[in-house]
Amino acid sequence: MAGRVVRNIVRADADVIEGLAVCGVATVHEAQGRIGLMGSRLRPIYAGARIAGSAVTISAPPGDNWMVHVAIEQLQPGDILVLAPTSPCEDGYFGDLLATSAMARGCRGLIIDAGVRDVRDLTQMGFPVWSKAVFAQGTVKATLGSVNVPIVCAGAMVEPGDVIVADDDGVCAVKRADAASVLQKAQAREANEESKRKRLAAGELGLDIYDMRGRLAEIGLKYE
Amino acid sequence: MAGRVVRNIVRADADVIEGLAVCGVATVHEAQGRIGLMGSRLRPIYAGARIAGSAVTISAPPGDNWMVHVAIEQLQPGDILVLAPTSPCEDGYFGDLLATSAMARGCRGLIIDAGVRDVRDLTQMGFPVWSKAVFAQGTVKATLGSVNVPIVCAGAMVEPGDVIVADDDGVCAVKRADAASVLQKAQAREANEESKRKRLAAGELGLDIYDMRGRLAEIGLKYE
Amino acid sequence: MAGRVVRNIVRADADVIEGLAVCGVATVHEAQGRIGLMGSRLRPIYAGARIAGSAVTISAPPGDNWMVHVAIEQLQPGDILVLAPTSPCEDGYFGDLLATSAMARGCRGLIIDAGVRDVRDLTQMGFPVWSKAVFAQGTVKATLGSVNVPIVCAGAMVEPGDVIVADDDGVCAVKRADAASVLQKAQAREANEESKRKRLAAGELGLDIYDMRGRLAEIGLKYE
Amino acid sequence: MAGRVVRNIVRADADVIEGLAVCGVATVHEAQGRIGLMGSRLRPIYAGARIAGSAVTISAPPGDNWMVHVAIEQLQPGDILVLAPTSPCEDGYFGDLLATSAMARGCRGLIIDAGVRDVRDLTQMGFPVWSKAVFAQGTVKATLGSVNVPIVCAGAMVEPGDVIVADDDGVCAVKRADAASVLQKAQAREANEESKRKRLAAGELGLDIYDMRGRLAEIGLKYE
Amino acid sequence: MAGRVVRNIVRADADVIEGLAVCGVATVHEAQGRIGLMGSRLRPIYAGARIAGSAVTISAPPGDNWMVHVAIEQLQPGDILVLAPTSPCEDGYFGDLLATSAMARGCRGLIIDAGVRDVRDLTQMGFPVWSKAVFAQGTVKATLGSVNVPIVCAGAMVEPGDVIVADDDGVCAVKRADAASVLQKAQAREANEESKRKRLAAGELGLDIYDMRGRLAEIGLKYE
Amino acid sequence: MAGRVVRNIVRADADVIEGLAVCGVATVHEAQGRIGLMGSRLRPIYAGARIAGSAVTISAPPGDNWMVHVAIEQLQPGDILVLAPTSPCEDGYFGDLLATSAMARGCRGLIIDAGVRDVRDLTQMGFPVWSKAVFAQGTVKATLGSVNVPIVCAGAMVEPGDVIVADDDGVCAVKRADAASVLQKAQAREANEESKRKRLAAGELGLDIYDMRGRLAEIGLKYE
Repeated sequence: MAGRVVRNIVRADADVIEGLAVCGVATVHEAQGRIGLMGSRLRPIYAGARIAGSAVTISAPPGDNWMVHVAIEQLQPGDILVLAPTSPCEDGYFGDLLATSAMARGCRGLIIDAGVRDVRDLTQMGFPVWSKAVFAQGTVKATLGSVNVPIVCAGAMVEPGDVIVADDDGVCAVKRADAASVLQKAQAREANEESKRKRLAAGELGLDIYDMRGRLAEIGLKYE
Repeated sequence: MAGRVVRNIVRADADVIEGLAVCGVATVHEAQGRIGLMGSRLRPIYAGARIAGSAVTISAPPGDNWMVHVAIEQLQPGDILVLAPTSPCEDGYFGDLLATSAMARGCRGLIIDAGVRDVRDLTQMGFPVWSKAVFAQGTVKATLGSVNVPIVCAGAMVEPGDVIVADDDGVCAVKRADAASVLQKAQAREANEESKRKRLAAGELGLDIYDMRGRLAEIGLKYE
Repeated sequence: MAGRVVRNIVRADADVIEGLAVCGVATVHEAQGRIGLMGSRLRPIYAGARIAGSAVTISAPPGDNWMVHVAIEQLQPGDILVLAPTSPCEDGYFGDLLATSAMARGCRGLIIDAGVRDVRDLTQMGFPVWSKAVFAQGTVKATLGSVNVPIVCAGAMVEPGDVIVADDDGVCAVKRADAASVLQKAQAREANEESKRKRLAAGELGLDIYDMRGRLAEIGLKYE
Repeated sequence: MAGRVVRNIVRADADVIEGLAVCGVATVHEAQGRIGLMGSRLRPIYAGARIAGSAVTISAPPGDNWMVHVAIEQLQPGDILVLAPTSPCEDGYFGDLLATSAMARGCRGLIIDAGVRDVRDLTQMGFPVWSKAVFAQGTVKATLGSVNVPIVCAGAMVEPGDVIVADDDGVCAVKRADAASVLQKAQAREANEESKRKRLAAGELGLDIYDMRGRLAEIGLKYE
Repeated sequence: MAGRVVRNIVRADADVIEGLAVCGVATVHEAQGRIGLMGSRLRPIYAGARIAGSAVTISAPPGDNWMVHVAIEQLQPGDILVLAPTSPCEDGYFGDLLATSAMARGCRGLIIDAGVRDVRDLTQMGFPVWSKAVFAQGTVKATLGSVNVPIVCAGAMVEPGDVIVADDDGVCAVKRADAASVLQKAQAREANEESKRKRLAAGELGLDIYDMRGRLAEIGLKYE
Repeated sequence: MAGRVVRNIVRADADVIEGLAVCGVATVHEAQGRIGLMGSRLRPIYAGARIAGSAVTISAPPGDNWMVHVAIEQLQPGDILVLAPTSPCEDGYFGDLLATSAMARGCRGLIIDAGVRDVRDLTQMGFPVWSKAVFAQGTVKATLGSVNVPIVCAGAMVEPGDVIVADDDGVCAVKRADAASVLQKAQAREANEESKRKRLAAGELGLDIYDMRGRLAEIGLKYE
């Protein structure tokens, strides 16, 4: 049932979160076994932002942004707001006033499976948003939702305190309890990729580096 | 029936139009009671444009841009072309030659619930377009439509001479007769927002500024 | 049946290819009789790229990028990779490592009716991609596809060696055998447009330049 | 502004309405000059229904069906409810209880650019609905909309009292003032089609019946 | 990580499951506080089916139905297969052979956020499917997924053993632990609706039955 | 360039065509190596139709059905009309009069990557259509297209004379030259499936019949 606000949520270590931001979405997604990725409909309102933070989740009725105000009070520095409407909606739940308030509390950005507005102002303020739509449509404050409950956002399960990583490739959620080990795997993956990148840049082929020719021939690839 | 061109349309005051451009889409949409907003599928071909002008409307058959030529003759400085196809279409009705012609007559931009092409040239020319698609698909000149008749563009009713406001948030239509009063309300709204913005930036919460806590508790919000 | 790699494909003249790049998608599409245009869902990952090259085609299973490695070996300088999944898919088949490898072989870009990732890196590397989605979702290497077979990419038929032209307006395929004559027509079209552009900029109307008034009246256009 | 209920609306003649129902959507749409057709996203919940009636319009917030209750009081026998949400929504605004209430007042059906639920019950009750979605998602009763104001429903302008025609082909709106003349044209069209149908069934070609060969040759059709 | 099959899952009581099937999706969704509903893109392949059962979940790679075979071994009479691809896909994972096998083990139906084929056969067999698409596109058996792990299917979280309810209105998931209490609430809701239905059928208005007039006036509804 | 009508096309053997109709879309698609399938957006206007025939192709401008009349003259008994618009369109190119004419010439059905209307009449006439939309929107007769040229329809390449197979699962195109061998493979596939169906119905598992357990264990499937 709607109408719940959970105040005490557990967050991951700040260092782990910072590390995940540096790795970026594609690497983190791979490192944790290709889970947690939000749908491609979530796009950044401007290019170049690259953030990670702890999820403060919002379950909101369609066209009603009342719970965003409630959620902002729950923010701690380093948090990211993550909003899923209870049914598909593209209204503009969030604009420059709410961003001003969220930034004042140290919020790093917003992930919303709905719409956002005032994107020119948000861009100038440097408050990044990943959204399904840019839409000026206003919302009301009439019906309860919940804050810091588990939600499904753009197809990904998110629990409050999970780590959210977002960059130009999209948005990925990492379970809080897995964050440290995912970071380790992500960093190992990056180290490994660096040597591959050099060899590929020098003209070596992935077919050879990854030793694919035998298996391809075995399952039937034919050159003509 | 198609085949009509209305030559004498009434436009709003230039000052009012300029004022609405400054307020922007989100504010104007709110100020007039949350009506007139076009669908979020209309996106600008480049970021940063912010215009207002009088609508010269075009109802065009799918894949036929003949009426754009007819409409351009009806343009006066400060006008905005607004094109709705008679059925869903994403063909490129408009490119750099038509933009050159429209700019020569003082046109400020194009709103089109279809496609546009030559977007690199249009960007360099500084001719802003809000469209459903970027698509090079060419159109024909074979079938009549109408110019300066009422149309529905991306879900919004537009009559010739209505004020169109467009920016990074999308496109909003304002009834010509309401334009002055909408401007007043929009400016009042902006003034009011400014003080709110300062308080929010200082860390005050919307929950307190808007006095929401009582009503939230009353309808059942529970903190855990 | 999948599992074929065609090694010797015929390419168009380098000069013709360069010429087509300069003309751009909209002009080339018109010059060849409005065929060969890919659907508008293919969008560039960054603005401003304008390329032409010879198609090295990839038919790949959904969520499986093994054939990209196979295709890279077939690349020659000036080629463009063109990938169509065998069923609709938006997974990220391609990222910065593959781009590094493709660039090392002189590849000019990627056209993909699916997803791409590492777009920030690709942008910094100057490797242009036109894709249906930006999506970090990883792919596997488990099932055969084919390289350099005819494919349908975003609604356009592409044979290996066809010329691909891509810019901010989208992507167009030109049959290799037609490339030289299409270039001639495209250049003629551009020359013709230049004079039109000047007259339109000077305020002449398309209605007059193209002598449309008579025919419009004949089929019933009425001015009110 | 929302919050208006217009009680006295003018309806078209019952005979005219009945006549339009018999003609059906495609014929009526053609007869009135190809305007007034709602988007193809509106589909009937069951095949075979064919109705016409006077529009009682509802402008409703997303996910809020309070105004449906208000609108039902305004229904007269022969009316059709037409609901447009103020922003895109597919929630189930309407189910078997509301249908029971609407039928008790003589309502002939519902046109809704959103969702409907209880479709099995509605089908058994013989209450036809044309909707954008079938979706069980519940709605709230918290925010005002309006009843019997002009709306844009699925891209078509509808004023209260306009005639709505709906069948397996979709939904068309006819201006109340034009209804009688549209009916005349629709019936003339049907009579004309009947003779065409016989000739076509006998094997005559449209090319000959409509005398198209000359014009086709003139504009360049070539037989090979 | 993929590659897990959980063999021992806990199921809800058969009586509770039967009861939920009788209540249907819309009622169950309301009774449990409007959660658990899958997206409206899931549609039944034929009208009239109304089932409930225990979820045997499948997380499958795009275009790979190997895990369906693995899942069928885990089926017990009364179960429902619930498949979510790891990225958006509409391939036909399931056809008449798999249905034959699933039915032989007592499976009641399939919920799939992807495609299905052989729908004519499935209809004749009386094996109901709710799917995102009907699509003959074949799949491979090359990559691991998992069986009986938590999944997100069409936006709803599903854990193995949760109760799935499906009918013409769509699909709803009920947490296993909540199933009995949800059934109670659903039945209470139905009992309550019955009396409302009679009053509405007799012409009473919802405005009066639910005593809405006062609150509507209070927040500003105006009759004209 | 548009404006071509090819009169003499070669068709496959009638017996082969009949055989393919009996096999159905899913089997034929598999038998020919999973190619030729049209996109899932093409749906039948009524359930139960199952046809095969020789393609008479139409390339038509958006919203212009003139070429349908031209194509009907080219029909021979057993043919199927296949229409692809030159850009995305959902207008109703085809209705009961054209169906009457096509049926008089022995046409078995229509495949159209656009809209159709008069679906109630078409259903009663038993003229099956697979379309992207049902939409009453009328079309004009003003611009040339072509008949019996290669087209891409819903993502599948179709040449005139290719065999089209369509049923409740969708639409598949078979190259004319391959039709006989595809039929052989399809029939072999069906024979093989029959024995599998019996074993599965008797409770044997696909895991055993197809001997999958070893390979699954080898690549890492774990039972818990």
